[in-house]
Amino acid sequence: MDLERQVKYFKHLIGSKDLQTLKQEVEDMNSADLAEILESFDERDTLLIFRMMPKDLSIDVFAYMTPYQRRLLINSMTDDELQSILNDLYFDDMIDLLEEMPASFVNKVLAQTPIEERKVINEFLMYPDDSAGSIMTTEYVDLKPNWTVQEALDYIKNIGMTKETVYTCYVKNKYQKLLGFVSLRQLVTENPKAKIEDIMLTDVIYVDTLDDQEDVADKFNKYGYLALPVVDQEHRLTGIITVDDIMDVMELETTEDFHRMAAIEPSDKDYMEETVFSLAKNRLPWLLILMISATLTSGIINKYNWIIQDFIILTSFIPMLSDTGGNTGAQSSTVVIRALAIGEIKLSDIWTVVFKEARVGVIAGSVLAVVNFIRLYFLVREPLLISALVSLTIFCTVELSKIMGAFLPIVVKKLGFDPALMASSFISTVIDSLTLVIYFGLARLILY
Amino acid sequence: MDLERQVKYFKHLIGSKDLQTLKQEVEDMNSADLAEILESFDERDTLLIFRMMPKDLSIDVFAYMTPYQRRLLINSMTDDELQSILNDLYFDDMIDLLEEMPASFVNKVLAQTPIEERKVINEFLMYPDDSAGSIMTTEYVDLKPNWTVQEALDYIKNIGMTKETVYTCYVKNKYQKLLGFVSLRQLVTENPKAKIEDIMLTDVIYVDTLDDQEDVADKFNKYGYLALPVVDQEHRLTGIITVDDIMDVMELETTEDFHRMAAIEPSDKDYMEETVFSLAKNRLPWLLILMISATLTSGIINKYNWIIQDFIILTSFIPMLSDTGGNTGAQSSTVVIRALAIGEIKLSDIWTVVFKEARVGVIAGSVLAVVNFIRLYFLVREPLLISALVSLTIFCTVELSKIMGAFLPIVVKKLGFDPALMASSFISTVIDSLTLVIYFGLARLILY
Repeated sequence: MDLERQVKYFKHLIGSKDLQTLKQEVEDMNSADLAEILESFDERDTLLIFRMMPKDLSIDVFAYMTPYQRRLLINSMTDDELQSILNDLYFDDMIDLLEEMPASFVNKVLAQTPIEERKVINEFLMYPDDSAGSIMTTEYVDLKPNWTVQEALDYIKNIGMTKETVYTCYVKNKYQKLLGFVSLRQLVTENPKAKIEDIMLTDVIYVDTLDDQEDVADKFNKYGYLALPVVDQEHRLTGIITVDDIMDVMELETTEDFHRMAAIEPSDKDYMEETVFSLAKNRLPWLLILMISATLTSGIINKYNWIIQDFIILTSFIPMLSDTGGNTGAQSSTVVIRALAIGEIKLSDIWTVVFKEARVGVIAGSVLAVVNFIRLYFLVREPLLISALVSLTIFCTVELSKIMGAFLPIVVKKLGFDPALMASSFISTVIDSLTLVIYFGLARLILY
Repeated sequence: MDLERQVKYFKHLIGSKDLQTLKQEVEDMNSADLAEILESFDERDTLLIFRMMPKDLSIDVFAYMTPYQRRLLINSMTDDELQSILNDLYFDDMIDLLEEMPASFVNKVLAQTPIEERKVINEFLMYPDDSAGSIMTTEYVDLKPNWTVQEALDYIKNIGMTKETVYTCYVKNKYQKLLGFVSLRQLVTENPKAKIEDIMLTDVIYVDTLDDQEDVADKFNKYGYLALPVVDQEHRLTGIITVDDIMDVMELETTEDFHRMAAIEPSDKDYMEETVFSLAKNRLPWLLILMISATLTSGIINKYNWIIQDFIILTSFIPMLSDTGGNTGAQSSTVVIRALAIGEIKLSDIWTVVFKEARVGVIAGSVLAVVNFIRLYFLVREPLLISALVSLTIFCTVELSKIMGAFLPIVVKKLGFDPALMASSFISTVIDSLTLVIYFGLARLILY
């Protein structure tokens, strides 16, 4: 990897105190790459390299760093250095930073901030976690409806470099209400004398400050825009959200889905940042619930002890049967949970989906049962009735798992909960009990 | 939901043959919403509504439709209608469409396309599936290095509306080699007399036509750009990829990860489009492999039959133990697989991660073992030795699952395979056998 070689080279330069060359190398690099490289350096060297960067580059690199890196760096910075970085960050990056920091640090920063700006920061910090308000930026371009295209372009020429995006510009009336938007593409291709109010699009897709960031991400996915405006209850424009910020949100939300499906309470932190205790805390609740639910299986087995005493061989197939049921159920529930998440299926599709999975179950169950029968009866040479019993149980378990795996996530979503809760771990536990009931139920019929 | 009411209203308008009102309603709607609404109509009504749209709107709606909807619509269109849509689609949308269609259809389209364009289409259709080349568009803005900013802006004014994006413009020399890029933001804020070659950024992040689309998505995530240029082996600019197209790729890649982690062969199709047979085909291979691997557990149990005959109660804890091991392992492997996918951990972090999971395992294992012991000994009143045996097995299984769950995905990735293969289903099967060995091994020590 290129960056790894770069790290070695930098370390060599620091070791041989050739800071002049290091400075030149640093200045030639891309900010995202630099942020990544810095992960491989300790606090002291990170600060050393960071201080070498020209101001603009250092701001960019800082914005690309992980929260953990930033905290390390901030701890070793002087107050002045920190203040100067905060002043130059884009507004939403600064808010993110403040949200990550301890309260004492935030108060220190606020004390040094002009009163007007302090009010805005405070407002932002109060939006609920994960709301559109908490991730928006106030640095958008706003145009007046009675301006001409040329006036708008002149305005952008002056202020464009300080805004998060200039590609979508928003039009407000004097009461700050959102009237419409124009894209910079329109502005550069339209007649310079045209009026903004005549060319703006008024069919604005917007989000509310209190909307959940996941709904915001869905809107970006659906409409494919580069930015969306955020309005308050009175339809006043309060900020915008850009596509690069929402991509981070999407990644985080997907990680949450993965974790919830593996029976883990989601957390916002990077894996390397989490303490062992917080990792354990996020995982224990579901492990406990699932372990205790699984004791139901002990009860079922105890009830059929008399069959096991007669046919002890039956015990040896229990793990294979329960694994197969769990795997089949996990397939269906994962497919359905994901399809619900990205809108491939709707709640009203429930019976279509269940019926489809049921038919998949018939095919998969038959194939697995036949393969298993051949193995048991012809290869391992188990008795005919035992081979038939195990194979029949496989068929029934697979069929049942497919149906439950499709049915439970949709029902849970209908009830208003996160369908990801019905993923493999939970499904396996439910299927396990049902498999045992089928197994011993069939054993009673076939073997006696 | 708003759209559902809209669907009902449209159906009512069609039913009462009030097509004038319907047409007005359709024209007022957003194209993404229209595409979604059309999912609720049959072929005939879809075509009816589609034909009401003004040309521009219908092209947009078509681009937003699912492949399945498009196929339905195309089947009922006349050849002329189809040709006219194809001509107006953005180039990459047209290529997507052609890739989805049967060969006979593609040949029919190509026969009616001018020879020059046909050559380009053919080139595109030959890029490997999932490569950068297959998702790029050739409709980018290219500037000459010796132009002034004003000349560039004039050029964009003329051709801007026909390009996929104008926000990043690329600078090529006369041999088509990529020299640098300028953003439209720069162009509108710079001095109109400045030369493009003086203001362009030459530190270009680019991708190769043959790069995998997943690597392209990673670059978008890392650098946060709105578009990336695609170059061929000779560093000639062949196309660009825009952020909205890559967002679809990301969604698809994430779905693949989800499916592979649930032991399903990934497919490109929507759930509702897949036939029952193809669903079964994607799921059976792993189910078979896992079922046959799981028969290892039968061997282990048979080997320890003599212990079960003495203590038949031991059987009843097998499913609970194997579920707990499976769930714990699934947690670790999911966390590690996801952290690898989004770059939170690197291959070189292997020992840090394994050690961390081992410590999480000590905490989680202790809590689960204690809770289990209390339940068995004090509540269910099992004998002391049995309660101790089961609890001790839980502790060892949890510890082992955490270590295996962290270790296996990283090793598999080191070997060059997809770590998602080491997700819950596979881990459960491995853990199951190990759990049984520990259980009966400890039973021999404790009970005899």
